[in-house]
Amino acid sequence: MSQKTHIAQTEPFRWEDVPVLAYKEDGGTHFRSITRQVLFDDGDAAGSQLRYFEIAPGGHSTLERHDHIHSVMVLRGCGQALVGREIHALQANDLVRVPPQTWHQFRATAGEPLGFLCVVRTERDKPRLPTVAELAELRADGRIGPFVRA
Amino acid sequence: MSQKTHIAQTEPFRWEDVPVLAYKEDGGTHFRSITRQVLFDDGDAAGSQLRYFEIAPGGHSTLERHDHIHSVMVLRGCGQALVGREIHALQANDLVRVPPQTWHQFRATAGEPLGFLCVVRTERDKPRLPTVAELAELRADGRIGPFVRA
Repeated sequence: MSQKTHIAQTEPFRWEDVPVLAYKEDGGTHFRSITRQVLFDDGDAAGSQLRYFEIAPGGHSTLERHDHIHSVMVLRGCGQALVGREIHALQANDLVRVPPQTWHQFRATAGEPLGFLCVVRTERDKPRLPTVAELAELRADGRIGPFVRA
Repeated sequence: MSQKTHIAQTEPFRWEDVPVLAYKEDGGTHFRSITRQVLFDDGDAAGSQLRYFEIAPGGHSTLERHDHIHSVMVLRGCGQALVGREIHALQANDLVRVPPQTWHQFRATAGEPLGFLCVVRTERDKPRLPTVAELAELRADGRIGPFVRA
């Protein structure tokens, strides 16, 4: 990625020489309509990355959990986030913290994209998807069951 | 700081239970009209912090350098950033990367505050101010001399 000291926004939520990537490289069907841009990578395995994700209207991220923390700030649009057993309504500039090994999923509202920053450690564990039993258990929870998509 | 999983923005660029702090604790005169809010601290000395700084109209940050990297995204307003020997005009959503041991200073335009995110390593070295000789050398550089404030 670019090592320039200034990277201008060229059009809304797109940046000079920052490619718009697939959300995940495995091409799975556990997410829908979402892109990824790596804004900063400090080049240190023990460091951090700042990524910008954008979920198209009605789309969603993978329902997953992992050891590493997600520190999220919404930049545009509205949506919802499942974190653990709670569903939060999201607006621009809201913050979301995903603790270790906590099920989470982001969803955009129907009308506009949901764009958010996410800080992670560069060296991090792979996300894990729910097993059939775990998914059944999440779906059986009246508070969150109707929300989850997998 | 708060360990909640959702931290709502309560008014523009202010967040629930996130205190608005002095920019620096030393109360120096090498900066002007700037506040700091720690949005995320992953609680790991080897991890990272996400901070939000806001420079009031006409204010500026300290002219300094250090080993740790700053990864910056402008969220509101306009201004300028000195990074090394370059001055960049800044607008919302622009990115600024400050490499190790690179002189840098941010300034807000007269008309509105300049607000920006900054990701840093939690465990980091202290910033260093220019010596008298270094400052004289920076001021003698026609490209950046008129910009620096110390």
